[in-house]
Amino acid sequence: MYELDARGVVVRERRAALGIQRITDGRFADALATLCGDALSQAVPVLACGMIGSRQGWVEAPYCDCPAGIDAIAGALTAVPGTALLIAPGLMVRDAAGVADVMRGEETQILGALPDRPVDQSLYVLPGTHSKWAIAGAEGILTFTTFMTGELYAVLRDHSILGRLAVAGVDNGAFDRGVRMSLREQAALTHDLFSARTLPLTSELASEGVGDYLSGLLVGAEISAARAWAAGNSAAAAGVTLVGEAALCERYRRALTIAGVETVQGSPVAAARGLWRIAQHAGMLPS
Amino acid sequence: MYELDARGVVVRERRAALGIQRITDGRFADALATLCGDALSQAVPVLACGMIGSRQGWVEAPYCDCPAGIDAIAGALTAVPGTALLIAPGLMVRDAAGVADVMRGEETQILGALPDRPVDQSLYVLPGTHSKWAIAGAEGILTFTTFMTGELYAVLRDHSILGRLAVAGVDNGAFDRGVRMSLREQAALTHDLFSARTLPLTSELASEGVGDYLSGLLVGAEISAARAWAAGNSAAAAGVTLVGEAALCERYRRALTIAGVETVQGSPVAAARGLWRIAQHAGMLPS
Repeated sequence: MYELDARGVVVRERRAALGIQRITDGRFADALATLCGDALSQAVPVLACGMIGSRQGWVEAPYCDCPAGIDAIAGALTAVPGTALLIAPGLMVRDAAGVADVMRGEETQILGALPDRPVDQSLYVLPGTHSKWAIAGAEGILTFTTFMTGELYAVLRDHSILGRLAVAGVDNGAFDRGVRMSLREQAALTHDLFSARTLPLTSELASEGVGDYLSGLLVGAEISAARAWAAGNSAAAAGVTLVGEAALCERYRRALTIAGVETVQGSPVAAARGLWRIAQHAGMLPS
Repeated sequence: MYELDARGVVVRERRAALGIQRITDGRFADALATLCGDALSQAVPVLACGMIGSRQGWVEAPYCDCPAGIDAIAGALTAVPGTALLIAPGLMVRDAAGVADVMRGEETQILGALPDRPVDQSLYVLPGTHSKWAIAGAEGILTFTTFMTGELYAVLRDHSILGRLAVAGVDNGAFDRGVRMSLREQAALTHDLFSARTLPLTSELASEGVGDYLSGLLVGAEISAARAWAAGNSAAAAGVTLVGEAALCERYRRALTIAGVETVQGSPVAAARGLWRIAQHAGMLPS
């Protein structure tokens, strides 16, 4: 929860383990009250984004089709009956195979990470359970694509033979090695993953490095596929803006540097800035 | 456990949940006695292959380097002290990136699946947790490669959001669709996996089809990478021999047919035939 002053500056921030998977019996209103406290009783706009607007959330907010400008997003807010809360829409786009891709919450972070007056289109990377790569600029969010990198890492680490062989540890060199393995032309992820099993077997990788090596393989595969996806778009020629949690972004910065891609770190309060901009464009703020 | 007569014909077969992960306190001898019963007391050769020879097994059997002829394999049996048991070696090969790849047990199945007098080199596919593709012929097993297809399927089905969205069901059409998705030129597995999330969201795939669609995506990715691996070898031009459990081989036959690859089904007792051939070449049988 971010509380912003009249100029859009974050004056208070609160985090709580109240994601939609923690809410039982539909007690979303209680969670909102817990998060916001006194702020809710003031006559200020209350905006949310992300999974709270999913089918499993409080009230389902529709998806806007890409390309989606900020006015389209701000014009598609969904009100939660009986509350002051408005939920931002998610975004949907069709990939080259005609399959829908979706995001919820990241669209708001991207809007918040955009410069005040964007000139060119640019690449935004939001690492996570379902990593997003988006092309955005003055026109809003043009297109995006998803990679299940974080979820694959979690299930392989926690439930596969690769995780059973791993010993806790931090090994940046192993991470880099995994990235390079996946960036090579002949890379094939479902084969290369097995190297996280065989390299320790032949004493060519320490057990303490298996986790980071696995992470590198997956992040490298994401970067390789994302570059193919972005190829041909003018945004691909420039560097990328990383948006998200600092330690995870640092990991992607390492990997992207190996791939020869320059990175800049986006605003640490991109979500708050994005919600502010949506509220502005929705006419909810005094101009 | 297979019991073979003097001509190498399987006269008895017994299966039990006595894999190495079920054995506690190193009670391998008890498991062997349970499996073999009276047969052990006869003065006959007793041969095993697979994970029983791994570091986590009874006695570690070394890996033979590829190419490995049947004489090399038969010459590298490891005796288990205090028993009549001999364990076949595993195989090791270095892939194009210089990383070790390994198999244990599949080498014996491949030897058993080879024709009596192989003429050309040919492709053998052994689907499973860690699927193996091998090129073998008169010279034995030339090379092979591993794909973690089965394990990826299991962890994604049991522990990811894709599994949570799936409803039990059989849907061959969904399987075929997943295969085609992964066979297309622009395929990118960590992105395409997300389509198993979005297609049901947009009502373009029934929840009952998610499991088979996911399976198709993974098998298709394996076939695509395996064909790139085999490209340039004369064996790649011919069809492949499928070795393993019938239902799983049928699934691969479907997928390979979509990819335009002809298949033949290998011997259903390939492991028993392979052990027999190893025993022959080790001079353990009356000639």
